[in-house]
Amino acid sequence: MTGNAYDSGRLNLPFVGHCTFAKQPVCLDWDRIEADVAVFGAPYDMGTQYRAGARFGPRAIREASTLFSFGHGGAYDFEDDVTYLPADRVRIVDIGDADIIHTDTTKSHANIEAGVRRILAAGALPVVLGGDHSVHIPCIRAFDDRPPVHIVHIDAHLDFVDERHGVRYGHGNPLRRASEMAHVTGFSQLGIRNVSSSNRDDYAAARAAGSDILSVRQFRKLGVDGVLARVPADRRYYLTIDIDGFDPSIAPGTGTPSHGGFLYYEILEFLQGLAGRGEIVGVDLVEVAPDYDRDGTTAFLAAQLLMNLLGFVFHARGLSA
Amino acid sequence: MTGNAYDSGRLNLPFVGHCTFAKQPVCLDWDRIEADVAVFGAPYDMGTQYRAGARFGPRAIREASTLFSFGHGGAYDFEDDVTYLPADRVRIVDIGDADIIHTDTTKSHANIEAGVRRILAAGALPVVLGGDHSVHIPCIRAFDDRPPVHIVHIDAHLDFVDERHGVRYGHGNPLRRASEMAHVTGFSQLGIRNVSSSNRDDYAAARAAGSDILSVRQFRKLGVDGVLARVPADRRYYLTIDIDGFDPSIAPGTGTPSHGGFLYYEILEFLQGLAGRGEIVGVDLVEVAPDYDRDGTTAFLAAQLLMNLLGFVFHARGLSA
Amino acid sequence: MTGNAYDSGRLNLPFVGHCTFAKQPVCLDWDRIEADVAVFGAPYDMGTQYRAGARFGPRAIREASTLFSFGHGGAYDFEDDVTYLPADRVRIVDIGDADIIHTDTTKSHANIEAGVRRILAAGALPVVLGGDHSVHIPCIRAFDDRPPVHIVHIDAHLDFVDERHGVRYGHGNPLRRASEMAHVTGFSQLGIRNVSSSNRDDYAAARAAGSDILSVRQFRKLGVDGVLARVPADRRYYLTIDIDGFDPSIAPGTGTPSHGGFLYYEILEFLQGLAGRGEIVGVDLVEVAPDYDRDGTTAFLAAQLLMNLLGFVFHARGLSA
Amino acid sequence: MTGNAYDSGRLNLPFVGHCTFAKQPVCLDWDRIEADVAVFGAPYDMGTQYRAGARFGPRAIREASTLFSFGHGGAYDFEDDVTYLPADRVRIVDIGDADIIHTDTTKSHANIEAGVRRILAAGALPVVLGGDHSVHIPCIRAFDDRPPVHIVHIDAHLDFVDERHGVRYGHGNPLRRASEMAHVTGFSQLGIRNVSSSNRDDYAAARAAGSDILSVRQFRKLGVDGVLARVPADRRYYLTIDIDGFDPSIAPGTGTPSHGGFLYYEILEFLQGLAGRGEIVGVDLVEVAPDYDRDGTTAFLAAQLLMNLLGFVFHARGLSA
Amino acid sequence: MTGNAYDSGRLNLPFVGHCTFAKQPVCLDWDRIEADVAVFGAPYDMGTQYRAGARFGPRAIREASTLFSFGHGGAYDFEDDVTYLPADRVRIVDIGDADIIHTDTTKSHANIEAGVRRILAAGALPVVLGGDHSVHIPCIRAFDDRPPVHIVHIDAHLDFVDERHGVRYGHGNPLRRASEMAHVTGFSQLGIRNVSSSNRDDYAAARAAGSDILSVRQFRKLGVDGVLARVPADRRYYLTIDIDGFDPSIAPGTGTPSHGGFLYYEILEFLQGLAGRGEIVGVDLVEVAPDYDRDGTTAFLAAQLLMNLLGFVFHARGLSA
Amino acid sequence: MTGNAYDSGRLNLPFVGHCTFAKQPVCLDWDRIEADVAVFGAPYDMGTQYRAGARFGPRAIREASTLFSFGHGGAYDFEDDVTYLPADRVRIVDIGDADIIHTDTTKSHANIEAGVRRILAAGALPVVLGGDHSVHIPCIRAFDDRPPVHIVHIDAHLDFVDERHGVRYGHGNPLRRASEMAHVTGFSQLGIRNVSSSNRDDYAAARAAGSDILSVRQFRKLGVDGVLARVPADRRYYLTIDIDGFDPSIAPGTGTPSHGGFLYYEILEFLQGLAGRGEIVGVDLVEVAPDYDRDGTTAFLAAQLLMNLLGFVFHARGLSA
Repeated sequence: MTGNAYDSGRLNLPFVGHCTFAKQPVCLDWDRIEADVAVFGAPYDMGTQYRAGARFGPRAIREASTLFSFGHGGAYDFEDDVTYLPADRVRIVDIGDADIIHTDTTKSHANIEAGVRRILAAGALPVVLGGDHSVHIPCIRAFDDRPPVHIVHIDAHLDFVDERHGVRYGHGNPLRRASEMAHVTGFSQLGIRNVSSSNRDDYAAARAAGSDILSVRQFRKLGVDGVLARVPADRRYYLTIDIDGFDPSIAPGTGTPSHGGFLYYEILEFLQGLAGRGEIVGVDLVEVAPDYDRDGTTAFLAAQLLMNLLGFVFHARGLSA
Repeated sequence: MTGNAYDSGRLNLPFVGHCTFAKQPVCLDWDRIEADVAVFGAPYDMGTQYRAGARFGPRAIREASTLFSFGHGGAYDFEDDVTYLPADRVRIVDIGDADIIHTDTTKSHANIEAGVRRILAAGALPVVLGGDHSVHIPCIRAFDDRPPVHIVHIDAHLDFVDERHGVRYGHGNPLRRASEMAHVTGFSQLGIRNVSSSNRDDYAAARAAGSDILSVRQFRKLGVDGVLARVPADRRYYLTIDIDGFDPSIAPGTGTPSHGGFLYYEILEFLQGLAGRGEIVGVDLVEVAPDYDRDGTTAFLAAQLLMNLLGFVFHARGLSA
Repeated sequence: MTGNAYDSGRLNLPFVGHCTFAKQPVCLDWDRIEADVAVFGAPYDMGTQYRAGARFGPRAIREASTLFSFGHGGAYDFEDDVTYLPADRVRIVDIGDADIIHTDTTKSHANIEAGVRRILAAGALPVVLGGDHSVHIPCIRAFDDRPPVHIVHIDAHLDFVDERHGVRYGHGNPLRRASEMAHVTGFSQLGIRNVSSSNRDDYAAARAAGSDILSVRQFRKLGVDGVLARVPADRRYYLTIDIDGFDPSIAPGTGTPSHGGFLYYEILEFLQGLAGRGEIVGVDLVEVAPDYDRDGTTAFLAAQLLMNLLGFVFHARGLSA
Repeated sequence: MTGNAYDSGRLNLPFVGHCTFAKQPVCLDWDRIEADVAVFGAPYDMGTQYRAGARFGPRAIREASTLFSFGHGGAYDFEDDVTYLPADRVRIVDIGDADIIHTDTTKSHANIEAGVRRILAAGALPVVLGGDHSVHIPCIRAFDDRPPVHIVHIDAHLDFVDERHGVRYGHGNPLRRASEMAHVTGFSQLGIRNVSSSNRDDYAAARAAGSDILSVRQFRKLGVDGVLARVPADRRYYLTIDIDGFDPSIAPGTGTPSHGGFLYYEILEFLQGLAGRGEIVGVDLVEVAPDYDRDGTTAFLAAQLLMNLLGFVFHARGLSA
Repeated sequence: MTGNAYDSGRLNLPFVGHCTFAKQPVCLDWDRIEADVAVFGAPYDMGTQYRAGARFGPRAIREASTLFSFGHGGAYDFEDDVTYLPADRVRIVDIGDADIIHTDTTKSHANIEAGVRRILAAGALPVVLGGDHSVHIPCIRAFDDRPPVHIVHIDAHLDFVDERHGVRYGHGNPLRRASEMAHVTGFSQLGIRNVSSSNRDDYAAARAAGSDILSVRQFRKLGVDGVLARVPADRRYYLTIDIDGFDPSIAPGTGTPSHGGFLYYEILEFLQGLAGRGEIVGVDLVEVAPDYDRDGTTAFLAAQLLMNLLGFVFHARGLSA
Repeated sequence: MTGNAYDSGRLNLPFVGHCTFAKQPVCLDWDRIEADVAVFGAPYDMGTQYRAGARFGPRAIREASTLFSFGHGGAYDFEDDVTYLPADRVRIVDIGDADIIHTDTTKSHANIEAGVRRILAAGALPVVLGGDHSVHIPCIRAFDDRPPVHIVHIDAHLDFVDERHGVRYGHGNPLRRASEMAHVTGFSQLGIRNVSSSNRDDYAAARAAGSDILSVRQFRKLGVDGVLARVPADRRYYLTIDIDGFDPSIAPGTGTPSHGGFLYYEILEFLQGLAGRGEIVGVDLVEVAPDYDRDGTTAFLAAQLLMNLLGFVFHARGLSA
């Protein structure tokens, strides 16, 4: 275990100091990202079809993440008996947000894409905080000059709409857009549920595009290991998490909630397994809308999940203690 | 599957337009209800014993229901591979609310009863949005000139109080009142739990009146099929759902919450089974109190549940795609 | 005074029934708008630069407006000893909302413009409920084939930005866009205040375009009559009210609040005077964001103001009792 | 000035201890009320016509009042250089609440009336915490065997409705009911405002019953002294304060808010004058609805106002320091 | 079963009357505590490291507890067919709160300790309502002149920090401090979870001090009976419940929430078993922070749990019906 | 006027990016503060006597301040025709927060004091964001090796308590502590009001220490110029603003609100005058408690006020455009 910051310096309680992701250092010079992980905000929400406010998702998640940054030398988990993310071995930086241009989806998305490309160019793992799910489109597009990826998608909705009234880049379209990209080889779509999650044609289109679709109840019947077994092994995984994949009991703060969603350990354990099954090369977590998260549970869920996920990813790379 | 409204006309996103139930047409001329389902508000809450505000339940449920009305030709569920409620085969109308007279329970209840009688006279399925649980009394009374019904009751509380301090029509009395009506043949009371849900005498009275009472834990031990097997088959079912039958984690917005309640799929699957076991001839869903539902999860639960329930009912009648 | 609806029919308490503006009739057939006033929602908020959620402004204002619709034959004001809006002389309808296309400002604005044109074609007074202030652009454009208008603008911000990063149709641009239209002859901009309400160049541009700009303190020094005297008389006025022109104490629920704003009677009396000084031919009231209006005061302000304004307008036309 | 409780005993910070009014002693034996003031809750709200929840008004006011009870020997006001309510000279007790019977207005009102009669029998000043404004009816009725009173009424609404749909005891009727009682000699109704505060007939009826009606703007033009001069001097005053007489900026938490209301010092100074102009023999403060008072300002206003009012009343009796 | 208070006297609905725990009598004379249970508030929250406000925990729990006090002669549970807490056999009193001295942890803790000692001296069971978890330190210290206790600890966090920056009495330290007391023989620590719940050294120290630590998932694998079997039998148990041991879905209102916590029945059944396995001699329930409990679920959980726990304790002593 | 950042680079909308004060640069190396203004958080709230949560004041003010940072070259005010705070002439940095040690007032205050000393050593103007009002004590103490200051104090409460129960460093004591320091020459205490703002002895002590105390009403009678005339001219002013000096209508989000407070322009204009009357050498703004500021008005007030104040201070130094 690494040294403990408490021994010297500041106590640095969670409520003290600026809100960066997990109180990690800021890096605003995107030409000098020297880190293993770069957290990046994409506060775009003009793609939403119901409740607004995912633009404040990055701020809410950053604030919540301060709770999980007590100043230890790393994050010890007694169930695994592992200290994840030892401060001297895994460098995380928070590079701020993409510049969003109100009324202009194209420019906003382009700015998001440019940021992700910078992170990738620096060799860091991009962790993008949405924003609505349409931000997945520029995120995944930024991988188009890299080896193929398999998309792992956690969501209540299929998000596979092609076009309606000319809309192709809203929060109902991202996976469809991804399916059109050459570097995307397939999909595992988990948590999809409920009437009107999408129509019959979109399901057919998704399956035709190489998607394995599982509802929450189907996921439960298979069990975590059963689900993992259906995800192609030894791939580069891009992980896109719509927080509404989780149950409204723990994730009320989102634009289009859907009852009957995932509980915490189901996805935690799935992600722990996934990190060992291949390489997670990119992450976006979207649709946290703090105006509907009065007590903060949704933001805490997002932050806690990301902290654990990062631990699993670098543990798989041998970077834990 | 029916045609898709997107192809022409409006996109009609959930946040756009007046709030009627599932954005279905309004019918304020109660002499001309031409529909299979008539949604009817009963915003009476003078019968509550603790937190107020169920009077705004109908408005909250209507608002939440707009999320589940995306303009598809119907509601496709990929788990069942069924398109429920095809727009060309099942007609739903929203007939507005009963006239409520403040300070006057008798008149308010009479107005509710009159509205339900109109719906029944029109041959439509009444779906009543409370209001507190006392509105069940006029609802069930409106069936007194029709064939007998078996009441399926989902609630945390037994609601079988006879009289206290002269009160006979409050939200603790509805099932007792129903038990006194000749056209009510029995009860399945599900979800009843916790100390003070009622006293020992009321339990005895309920059982004497032909009630099968199951707590949440007893329901879980039996399983959905086991519970269904205890409900008399091939009956006309009147379904009364107090939202506090559900767990406060998904239904905080109610006057008298009780921990340890039902989760979403338990009741969803029970209702799916019930719709196939007999005929659901009337529904009331009560005690949604939006002032305690800051993030909206309770109203979404009510709307999502009713949308699915209607799908199941008409699927059982062969009206799906 | 006209007859009282209470004498027969329903009591129709404010909390009862569907939410239309002031519980007036719905008219969804825009080819048959037969009314003196048509209330129209424009739930577009992709033009906002800070807090989101004005898309729910129309719903919140409609809900709040039910408080001001008690079923009297009209709205009696004992200070004026006038019964405004007698039901048999002024017909108000609520025509629903413009179709909003997420991610697409151009189409959304076009739909708003089309709706206003329909209202004007029907000879009714359009009262548009925003949405963010960018919706003023299509609203005012819809008047381009009619006699010239003078714009009366109540706001904390000048909203006279030409272009930044290509944005020309955001909520900082509407008055600039209006200034480019031939049928707009001048502006009275009231309530503008605080550093960063706009930069020096934009003020110069506004004045060059014929604007008379008054801060809240300047308004107070002049008094209502003094301000009215500066508004060109006997014109056709188009009134655009950004709710953030009001003080955050009574209008917290808006995207970009600014302390030091107008109080209620200041604007009420100004509007009463304005209605008598010329003809009010169009109205938009924008930027009500209910997610930041937890106790509802902002929505009540909007509804109360519009109800009074309509009374003044038709009183000036001799339609009161 | 009396001794300071801090010198011995507990610090007793506001957030510590049970919530009684101003942390004064409880007296649940209504046969032994030995006090100068008896605070009494009337948590009845079935008379409301819009937003619910005034039933929790007494609890909210009690909680807020703990802020104004720092344990000094009395309440020193440096502007007046007076220590009001010296603990050794003015005894205040909190006698709890009237028993409310859900669904039953008659019994609930009777219980309120009985409580006020007990207080009067004990020679204490009744201070009743509503509940909705209908609770004024039993309160004022309890004075029917005592010398006549003049009612001073602060409200946005006239509350002079006779009967609608049979309703005679709702929150729109209390002053009408009072006007029918022989021991009520007249009314000063202050703050009445806005269209739909009542209809023309009710204004005529009020004036015929001896009411002097002033709007907020009329009150301001007259000034506090001018208004006081219109209140008959040397009478026994019964004071009924509907919190919606105040502006929504400081009293959002009420069922039927109305913009343009009183500010704090206007009524504070009026009450200070009134206490010296005659004898205040009874008080009710109604319509505090904490569910719409998220930040607590309304409850603080009610508590702060009552604390000052009591100080003025007993200062007028020579009981201050 | 005992007599029913409804037969005479007041209906006493939950929303009526002062807020004491379960509406039980107040006892402010701590020299005359004549009861089986004494509920005692410890509204100290200066030991928190993130979100504030547990100082209002006692008030929130008392308010919520009124829901569970319907005036029956006791609390009937139909699943157990037992009437718990018959009013004539188990006396509960609410003795108010410890005097808290702002800025002064030592004095505040001393006052808490003194209160618990008074309760113990009176032979009553102390039930302490926090406040933050640091209040456990004075609570457990008050047992130092009594027979040894085994601590049963429900929490998300280990709370076994020794000292950081000189802090030894904050809410991260209580179990460590307890471990240093001679009368504490061991610990069962349940629900501990998540990275950063504590560091590796603290886990080692806890185990060295005789602690059996189980995560939520470990608890579930063992089952309630399996967990109970690991708790030393026939001991005197001191039970300390940090509400964040529960899942944020049912306990959002706490300072440092942690996803993946206990659900209701898991702990209910564990406590029922524990009450029969030895003697529960003291209880504290801490970290309820109502400012983050907008809809009240956390406070209801605390109140409902305590009511049931007391029933189990006295049932184990033969005091039920 | 300086160049406009929009011409190149990012649009940088208020909702985009990390929350620093007015989006100014972070400076965490306190040995290299190279700026004219250093904003510094003091998130300590263990000194509060009623509602908690001022620890989150710095975060809330920073978030709100992003609204006032649109990327102009400075902040243009059209009423003054001045561009304040031109970016090339006034450098503002945000140095983060003092390290707060839970349970330990002495250490926390020492850390605050140390930070202010660093700012002063760097020659920058310290602007401290509380936290509760006790943080004024270390702030003012940090000036003890500099020329004397006159304290200008805006507050509802006198804050001149000497000691109660041993407490000398709580939020009721700061001005008393300041009065004991040799470098403090006098006080202007403005806004003090209401019974229980303090007791008679404390007022006498304050006046004996050289304080000029004015209530809100006294301030209004004198007018801004009259009040300014009573402040000793040509002094070094230390300004301490308790947000509860303002009216609850615009500052609900504070621990101990008091009705009848200052409105916005009263203090804005006073501060504008003060900046020209002498040198403002230090500022603290305290008691913003975001948990009671649901709609954000209080945080916006604090941010807007500070932005204007800084403009005035540097305008007085000739640094505007």
